[in-house]
Amino acid sequence: MGLAMGVIDVVTAVYPGSFDPVTNGHVDIAERASKVFGRVVVAVLNNPAKDALFTVDERTEMLATALGHLPNVEIAHFSGLLVDFARQHGAQVIVRGLRALSDFEYEFQMASVNRKIGGGIETVFMMTANEYAFLSSSMVKEVARFGGCVRGFVPDHVARRLAEKFRPAR
Amino acid sequence: MGLAMGVIDVVTAVYPGSFDPVTNGHVDIAERASKVFGRVVVAVLNNPAKDALFTVDERTEMLATALGHLPNVEIAHFSGLLVDFARQHGAQVIVRGLRALSDFEYEFQMASVNRKIGGGIETVFMMTANEYAFLSSSMVKEVARFGGCVRGFVPDHVARRLAEKFRPAR
Amino acid sequence: MGLAMGVIDVVTAVYPGSFDPVTNGHVDIAERASKVFGRVVVAVLNNPAKDALFTVDERTEMLATALGHLPNVEIAHFSGLLVDFARQHGAQVIVRGLRALSDFEYEFQMASVNRKIGGGIETVFMMTANEYAFLSSSMVKEVARFGGCVRGFVPDHVARRLAEKFRPAR
Amino acid sequence: MGLAMGVIDVVTAVYPGSFDPVTNGHVDIAERASKVFGRVVVAVLNNPAKDALFTVDERTEMLATALGHLPNVEIAHFSGLLVDFARQHGAQVIVRGLRALSDFEYEFQMASVNRKIGGGIETVFMMTANEYAFLSSSMVKEVARFGGCVRGFVPDHVARRLAEKFRPAR
Amino acid sequence: MGLAMGVIDVVTAVYPGSFDPVTNGHVDIAERASKVFGRVVVAVLNNPAKDALFTVDERTEMLATALGHLPNVEIAHFSGLLVDFARQHGAQVIVRGLRALSDFEYEFQMASVNRKIGGGIETVFMMTANEYAFLSSSMVKEVARFGGCVRGFVPDHVARRLAEKFRPAR
Amino acid sequence: MGLAMGVIDVVTAVYPGSFDPVTNGHVDIAERASKVFGRVVVAVLNNPAKDALFTVDERTEMLATALGHLPNVEIAHFSGLLVDFARQHGAQVIVRGLRALSDFEYEFQMASVNRKIGGGIETVFMMTANEYAFLSSSMVKEVARFGGCVRGFVPDHVARRLAEKFRPAR
Repeated sequence: MGLAMGVIDVVTAVYPGSFDPVTNGHVDIAERASKVFGRVVVAVLNNPAKDALFTVDERTEMLATALGHLPNVEIAHFSGLLVDFARQHGAQVIVRGLRALSDFEYEFQMASVNRKIGGGIETVFMMTANEYAFLSSSMVKEVARFGGCVRGFVPDHVARRLAEKFRPAR
Repeated sequence: MGLAMGVIDVVTAVYPGSFDPVTNGHVDIAERASKVFGRVVVAVLNNPAKDALFTVDERTEMLATALGHLPNVEIAHFSGLLVDFARQHGAQVIVRGLRALSDFEYEFQMASVNRKIGGGIETVFMMTANEYAFLSSSMVKEVARFGGCVRGFVPDHVARRLAEKFRPAR
Repeated sequence: MGLAMGVIDVVTAVYPGSFDPVTNGHVDIAERASKVFGRVVVAVLNNPAKDALFTVDERTEMLATALGHLPNVEIAHFSGLLVDFARQHGAQVIVRGLRALSDFEYEFQMASVNRKIGGGIETVFMMTANEYAFLSSSMVKEVARFGGCVRGFVPDHVARRLAEKFRPAR
Repeated sequence: MGLAMGVIDVVTAVYPGSFDPVTNGHVDIAERASKVFGRVVVAVLNNPAKDALFTVDERTEMLATALGHLPNVEIAHFSGLLVDFARQHGAQVIVRGLRALSDFEYEFQMASVNRKIGGGIETVFMMTANEYAFLSSSMVKEVARFGGCVRGFVPDHVARRLAEKFRPAR
Repeated sequence: MGLAMGVIDVVTAVYPGSFDPVTNGHVDIAERASKVFGRVVVAVLNNPAKDALFTVDERTEMLATALGHLPNVEIAHFSGLLVDFARQHGAQVIVRGLRALSDFEYEFQMASVNRKIGGGIETVFMMTANEYAFLSSSMVKEVARFGGCVRGFVPDHVARRLAEKFRPAR
Repeated sequence: MGLAMGVIDVVTAVYPGSFDPVTNGHVDIAERASKVFGRVVVAVLNNPAKDALFTVDERTEMLATALGHLPNVEIAHFSGLLVDFARQHGAQVIVRGLRALSDFEYEFQMASVNRKIGGGIETVFMMTANEYAFLSSSMVKEVARFGGCVRGFVPDHVARRLAEKFRPAR
């Protein structure tokens, strides 16, 4: 089983999501992925059909700040099919964070479809740290909307952005 | 985000299991892992507390035949803690196949514990192909025990070994 | 382990929900909670973002009729964060009914967040009686909308209110 | 809804388990229960049919040390039906910790049966803190058996007891 | 146990769904049902509250083409309560495909309600073939919307209809 | 879609299980199956590898009493592969009761394997009535072992047999 011929030199992984906004759970997955894969492209989904709190530019900017300490991580955005984006960026792998059970089947459905239409792109799942197991962007927005404290859920600069968004107009 | 300093050159992944015997689902995961990681060590768990049908040597031999086409895959066996084995083999990653829901929580428990006691070893999950989603070594043995056909569930040479094991003595 | 110093005299529990409308499953949980906790505040969520069939006043009135036999149960309504409401009413405990699996992760996410932002408020789960395990307000409304019989799913006075709501205009 | 006639003065809760040995997750649930219920009886199940690592006396002693800071908590042990034990100790409530999904259905089955045969005893579920969501006595024993570090999983005095149990004989 | 008195001669089963559009998974379930039941009525749900891609007529036509090889299968459509439709068509059985876990609880809730309001109509579940376990009409539409290939997911004539729907206007 | 050529006249279904002992949940499924299928063979699994409380003869006898009111139901027993038994009895269908989530994946695994090795035998699932959703033979035996009341869980004649089994010897 000698030489590993044909094994790619640097594996590029895409880590896609809405990141509306990035949470500490997302940061955790990005950090893990950056240790395992040579290059990680964090890909912000631009989905016009879904109401977002932050624009794609705001989300990208918050991600850049939150992940600036990871040298092999880039931020990009996409609309359309994820596998098309992955191919355009030379990625062989899609990374997804699995929190808890509720993610499981949707993620499997996506991975199954992406395998069929993606021509050899593999999906790998990484497990969110326990303390973020029940954390989601939606929950964070719900808490922030009513003035609750979101420290510990998101990076501090994101907490400030959330407070600005929900600050009552005068 | 400049240079990927500190990113490891070749990532070694351990793919542990009982492999009693190896199924087509295991082969599928090993093939996927070999495309994503530079080096994959398939690690046969030697668990004296659990009755196995095949010896560790038989299981290793069947794996070697089933995975011989994958140049960057090695077979080994271990007892004791998986994270100790991983460290000894210079692995940074543990690969686990997720079939269906039933695996989910046990796998998460293991990944959570291995992270705490493993000092930085990451677990990644890969999804078994749909056609193997409900396949397990136990089920294969149960079918073979009563003379049922296990083609499609395991490699042909494993099917022959199963038939020999369960052939009625004269 | 002598004296139970510092243990509160009467534990107040909040039982929150949309109650649009109250079902026999809700009544069941309120009855159980009223046996375990000294004071139970049933809290109707006033969520302008979600289309409700009944107004908060109608829902409160139906709850008052359905739970009138429970002397230590009060009805109130709230918008905003549940933990703020709980603090204002001197509650130490949030009660949630667990029906089946589908509730599980959402409830855990809520309980996890409420613990972090709630400063010591505990969530306890009580199990709905088997016969109500698959009962929900949405399903009841769906059946009533098409003239199906909802006896057994909701108290009789609620069944009448549903029939009035969906009675075809002449 | 005036006076809370008939509401019991001090609610006694039973918190049953094998506790072989007590983990930080068990301690967490006992602490939460002691804040919500006037009196908590931690009940060690003596099940001769199941191989235990520690004797009932050892388990009781470790629990007493781990929970000594909770004045309204007592330790006891039982065999036979839990509802019989609860009745003998004047308990109205059974407390169970829910970790993750895997507990869910077994716990519901038990709660459902205990309600039918228990004559009015209610089961309430409390959620383990996120960091203990994937922690179990079995996993702790498995790690300790092979010399892995169990700090963070169990109280320190339990870690020492585990080390003694698994220390190789000379 | 003698004569099977009172057992119905030909069992009629209703197989309801949105079928927007029919997938290979739906075809698979219809084929299985047609082998087990004497007569199968595939019933297209006309739900004005839910945005459909195809009209009821288009969906019916695609089903007729996809299931034309099954002599004991008819296509119909309905709005209102499924049990009313079933009774009007002399059906004793509702057939539902179970894919994976995500269907489970919703299906059980429906079956439970339909039993109560349906006066003796039984629901039976059939398991989709593994290769369709993660297939859904929504996913197919999502892929087709962005020009992805849906061969293998739907019959060819449906793939053509999807391509027409999403063809950019000039 | 004219004539239903080739559709079988009387569908025979096998309902397999350990039935150690038969519970009211089993009776419920057998009754439902007997309404949907022309002939139902209840098949007692004779598994020497698993300790049973009752012999196959005792289990068969209890089933015969419990299901005596169903004219199109027969009782038999088998060892070996279920699909072989089904073929020998001319059955086209295997019936399984789905209680709750815990059954789900095991049942799907079995159904998937039986389809592959069974040459066209279909598995259909029927849903146990809500009140039996958390009922199992094991739980019933556990309650009976300690003298708890099992009325409502099993037919009365089975309750008597359980009491005899666990009556203390003098």
